[in-house]
Amino acid sequence: MNAALRAVVKGAAGRPGLRVTGFLDGFAGVLDDAARPLGFDDVSGILDAGGTILGTSNRHDPFRVPAGPDAEPRDRSDAILATLSRREIDALIVVGGDGTLRIADRLHEKGVPVVGVPKTIDNDVAETDLSVGYDSARALATDAVDRLHSTAASHHRIMVVEVMGRHAGWIALDAGLAGGGDVILIPEIAWSFEAVARGIRERTDRGRRFSIVVVAEGAPSPSGRTVVREIVAAPDPVRLGGIGAVVAQGLGAMLPFETRWVVLGHTQRGGAPTAFDRILATRFGVAALEAAVDRAWGSMVALRGDRVERVPIAAAVARPKRVDPAGDRVAAARAVRTIFGDE
Amino acid sequence: MNAALRAVVKGAAGRPGLRVTGFLDGFAGVLDDAARPLGFDDVSGILDAGGTILGTSNRHDPFRVPAGPDAEPRDRSDAILATLSRREIDALIVVGGDGTLRIADRLHEKGVPVVGVPKTIDNDVAETDLSVGYDSARALATDAVDRLHSTAASHHRIMVVEVMGRHAGWIALDAGLAGGGDVILIPEIAWSFEAVARGIRERTDRGRRFSIVVVAEGAPSPSGRTVVREIVAAPDPVRLGGIGAVVAQGLGAMLPFETRWVVLGHTQRGGAPTAFDRILATRFGVAALEAAVDRAWGSMVALRGDRVERVPIAAAVARPKRVDPAGDRVAAARAVRTIFGDE
Amino acid sequence: MNAALRAVVKGAAGRPGLRVTGFLDGFAGVLDDAARPLGFDDVSGILDAGGTILGTSNRHDPFRVPAGPDAEPRDRSDAILATLSRREIDALIVVGGDGTLRIADRLHEKGVPVVGVPKTIDNDVAETDLSVGYDSARALATDAVDRLHSTAASHHRIMVVEVMGRHAGWIALDAGLAGGGDVILIPEIAWSFEAVARGIRERTDRGRRFSIVVVAEGAPSPSGRTVVREIVAAPDPVRLGGIGAVVAQGLGAMLPFETRWVVLGHTQRGGAPTAFDRILATRFGVAALEAAVDRAWGSMVALRGDRVERVPIAAAVARPKRVDPAGDRVAAARAVRTIFGDE
Amino acid sequence: MNAALRAVVKGAAGRPGLRVTGFLDGFAGVLDDAARPLGFDDVSGILDAGGTILGTSNRHDPFRVPAGPDAEPRDRSDAILATLSRREIDALIVVGGDGTLRIADRLHEKGVPVVGVPKTIDNDVAETDLSVGYDSARALATDAVDRLHSTAASHHRIMVVEVMGRHAGWIALDAGLAGGGDVILIPEIAWSFEAVARGIRERTDRGRRFSIVVVAEGAPSPSGRTVVREIVAAPDPVRLGGIGAVVAQGLGAMLPFETRWVVLGHTQRGGAPTAFDRILATRFGVAALEAAVDRAWGSMVALRGDRVERVPIAAAVARPKRVDPAGDRVAAARAVRTIFGDE
Repeated sequence: MNAALRAVVKGAAGRPGLRVTGFLDGFAGVLDDAARPLGFDDVSGILDAGGTILGTSNRHDPFRVPAGPDAEPRDRSDAILATLSRREIDALIVVGGDGTLRIADRLHEKGVPVVGVPKTIDNDVAETDLSVGYDSARALATDAVDRLHSTAASHHRIMVVEVMGRHAGWIALDAGLAGGGDVILIPEIAWSFEAVARGIRERTDRGRRFSIVVVAEGAPSPSGRTVVREIVAAPDPVRLGGIGAVVAQGLGAMLPFETRWVVLGHTQRGGAPTAFDRILATRFGVAALEAAVDRAWGSMVALRGDRVERVPIAAAVARPKRVDPAGDRVAAARAVRTIFGDE
Repeated sequence: MNAALRAVVKGAAGRPGLRVTGFLDGFAGVLDDAARPLGFDDVSGILDAGGTILGTSNRHDPFRVPAGPDAEPRDRSDAILATLSRREIDALIVVGGDGTLRIADRLHEKGVPVVGVPKTIDNDVAETDLSVGYDSARALATDAVDRLHSTAASHHRIMVVEVMGRHAGWIALDAGLAGGGDVILIPEIAWSFEAVARGIRERTDRGRRFSIVVVAEGAPSPSGRTVVREIVAAPDPVRLGGIGAVVAQGLGAMLPFETRWVVLGHTQRGGAPTAFDRILATRFGVAALEAAVDRAWGSMVALRGDRVERVPIAAAVARPKRVDPAGDRVAAARAVRTIFGDE
Repeated sequence: MNAALRAVVKGAAGRPGLRVTGFLDGFAGVLDDAARPLGFDDVSGILDAGGTILGTSNRHDPFRVPAGPDAEPRDRSDAILATLSRREIDALIVVGGDGTLRIADRLHEKGVPVVGVPKTIDNDVAETDLSVGYDSARALATDAVDRLHSTAASHHRIMVVEVMGRHAGWIALDAGLAGGGDVILIPEIAWSFEAVARGIRERTDRGRRFSIVVVAEGAPSPSGRTVVREIVAAPDPVRLGGIGAVVAQGLGAMLPFETRWVVLGHTQRGGAPTAFDRILATRFGVAALEAAVDRAWGSMVALRGDRVERVPIAAAVARPKRVDPAGDRVAAARAVRTIFGDE
Repeated sequence: MNAALRAVVKGAAGRPGLRVTGFLDGFAGVLDDAARPLGFDDVSGILDAGGTILGTSNRHDPFRVPAGPDAEPRDRSDAILATLSRREIDALIVVGGDGTLRIADRLHEKGVPVVGVPKTIDNDVAETDLSVGYDSARALATDAVDRLHSTAASHHRIMVVEVMGRHAGWIALDAGLAGGGDVILIPEIAWSFEAVARGIRERTDRGRRFSIVVVAEGAPSPSGRTVVREIVAAPDPVRLGGIGAVVAQGLGAMLPFETRWVVLGHTQRGGAPTAFDRILATRFGVAALEAAVDRAWGSMVALRGDRVERVPIAAAVARPKRVDPAGDRVAAARAVRTIFGDE
């Protein structure tokens, strides 16, 4: 995020007549007109800093009202247009994931001059090979899987690691592939405890005394409901234990192994971004600036092969990007004997 | 652990007449006579590998019987002596933490020729400045705290990170000091939600919009019981949510901040050990071999300043090593405005 | 490399009738028939290990003879066919960079059943977005550039860092982009000391008291010859000091800054590969096995966007992959004020 | 350095009546009165940043005159006292290595109220177990040695890595121990090419096909002079190639292995400090502030075991801290078969 911001600001500084204003805390800043001018010095040295110097907020959707009995959809795009007009701003560069880009698409429909930059560790934005932030997140998740290997192997355990991915299994699949996960459970592939346990038993027959299970937080678990009653009886199972706990306790009840689980959670965010992400963010930032200069409203910058191109935001949010169960990634994982629990 | 093992084996290979046997899975291997000879080639290239090539087990204490109505203390030191005799082994080098060394001390009393090497990520072995494994664990915990900073700062949140330390707060204190934790909660210092909340409010008054709370898994929480009823009502709160969840929900109820928590758990283990740990393990391994050659039974190798010395295992386990609330580490943390929640 | 090997072996283990033989030290092993069978257990746990368990050699080109007065091109493809025939091997999977794949292409012409996998930290293989190993190398180079920032800034210095890239400037460009290099010198863009010095003076005018220069080892330096006579007078300037020394001493003579240089050299290799590289290697390994099963001789697996495809090796080696001075990567670097020394 | 500064500033902010001024670029700032006040906000978020926000300079020794035919020792302690008096500063906290602390000692003799903090990646300050910065430097050097392993092993090479240490071999010894260096050459132990070559041949006899040589930049090489004439004939051999090149070419001429060398140089500095260093710097910073409040002029904070104590600067600089060839570190290295080239 910071790298993209730096690219926009530095890029604008090199072009006469352009100036950049940073809105604080995402749409909240646009709605409330909280902003500050950004110059060359403001973005110096932030290339390898995670997060964003502008702050962010998930709670300010201009099209959503606070919950309540008589709540109804609201449209605050006028407030956004007013802010831009008052500040004499010609273009709004929106950086974010699927949800943020959906808002950007609606703003575009309402006449707000927007350009989008895909940034999400979930990698669920379509029409681009990858989004900014994803490579860093999968790298951190892979590190964690690497580390669990030595503990699992020394203790002859089943280690379950729950990674991010509410709707898409990208991090689980890639961290599982990269970290040598033995079992990968993702929302895109229906799995059962029985099939997973069968796969682990076959590993045992081949002399393997431990297994690493990588599970996306959003991986469904219908059969889990009956296996681990205690957890489901708790008031809010997902918040308390999560799918990782469900899987660990379920497998622990079926197999003669100690099981442990760990939820990576926010440790998958932050830290210095990977070189890949910093390069991509810089290219995206400069390309977004060009798109704004070209008044290519409603377009999103996207990675296609080794080129950065423009695609319509509308196309990028028309369907979420999901793991293709028939694609070569999953096929490669199956070829190296990864268990998906669907057989 | 592997580095210490490598040092013992390589060191023995250089001395005529010595040979090394590795027991598998800790005391389990000694009791069941599961072992394999270890030579130069077996330990080549394992210096930077976490875990242990011999396996480990927490469940085989030669002085403890399986639970049961009529269970009584058992003494299986005879089985251990028998294994050593049958294999013509003159010395048993025991590598582990407080619990393992207590067993070693009792075996020594029973006439088993033992030498101890302190290795525990909890750092709770006395009479040595540090144990093998601790520096690597605090480094990983510090990395995690570092990463949470950018997320917490971007989102204006309270982030609670629960680190290892059931009885001692070493990792929490050191990762908090190194990672710039704003609040550190450890078992050695009694804290209250009120005092923590007061400290965070003072931070807010100084313009800080986020806080990082580092809490040891064993930090007591008497007042927590009343604040977060839902969690305590669950069948097994510590296993489900842990103290991290208790602290996050408690503070979330008292302060106008979003709170999130993360439990580092097993991600604090494994991975390539730090340079510090590999050097310490090598020095300890060679020193333990020397102690065995000198028939210094019942001694443990220990770091004192920059020297490796021998101390009695009995002294090392006589009292657990705890953080000194009046020591210079805690004083330094207080000086840089760390909140311990006891004021 | 190890990850690709693991994928081939594990993939073959899952298909009845297939077995894998590993030749030692590259073509040397095929020519001298030095090989060993590879099974599931041989490749277990090597996913995160750099290098190759089979060894490698640059010195065994079946089409090149040792130097000598009467040396003439030799063709040893018969020896390779003989080895394959004797061992009843149906396919040869060749893993390597531009040079290795050129040999593979000639072997294919001679009737050897080859399939290629692009692996080179120089990233100079065409027809694929990226080669295995490149992402890890640029990540290591970026880390080094990151670290030089704090030293350069504290000491108000010009730091020159020489990275790999004899013919292509990929690592220099990407590590410069990702690490915030102020000057990037690559073989694809002709540069002069005067233009670089001018750019650094403009930085000084903007208040910057240090600069980081990233230079590819193969960046040409015509004007350098006259500036730093001492170095060029030495018997083998490139081996002794390299282009990094030439650049540092040249700029030091023109500008009022202390200059230092560092040659990353082999520290850009080895270590645990990035998640990206492990995933790519696994996908490539499985895809190469499929190509061999399909008898798609002369094909190379390649990354195209997010898909793995087959391309002719002949096309991949027809022209080397170079940085496009007019592409969006260089444009992005220029937009954030990177100095290429060509203005 | 930044962590120590942060500790001093934050510590002072918590005590009524104290304020902190930061001199820019070391003694240069004191002599030229270039300084700025430092408050809580100035040091926020710098804990994990390498280098120093104040800048540094090696070229301003108040007791040394610029070179010249009629140069004579000069004493500018009056200028320093004048700066302190003018700014009403009661104490000068000096952070640095052996050279800087020697100056601090002389300033103390002249009546300047100084307190010292040992910070040097060379670890050559006596009377303290370790100096700030050393653990980070040896960690980076160890990473480099780790990475060279895979390249050396794959290519069957001798890899020579030259690390920092002009007068003391600490980094070479510790990075060699931690990284599994096969040969370690340090200034404290006289070595010969013959003995090193003999040791490597013995490795070959035991089946080892590669070797890693770790050499301190200051390791003397008397016999090297005759072996590699070309290099020594060059105008400035150490600047051009360094001892690493001398060792690599010398061994390459004596042994049937390809040799390569790499000079780590400035890549051993910078980057995020280790957890160990950040904790030590924080403890040292707070302890130095206490010493200043106690008017303990001429004292240096020092690590002794697990405690921070005060020692006279005069004692710390009376003799440089060197590796003890008879100490347990070297003994441990010898026990695991490290070659020191002195046998």
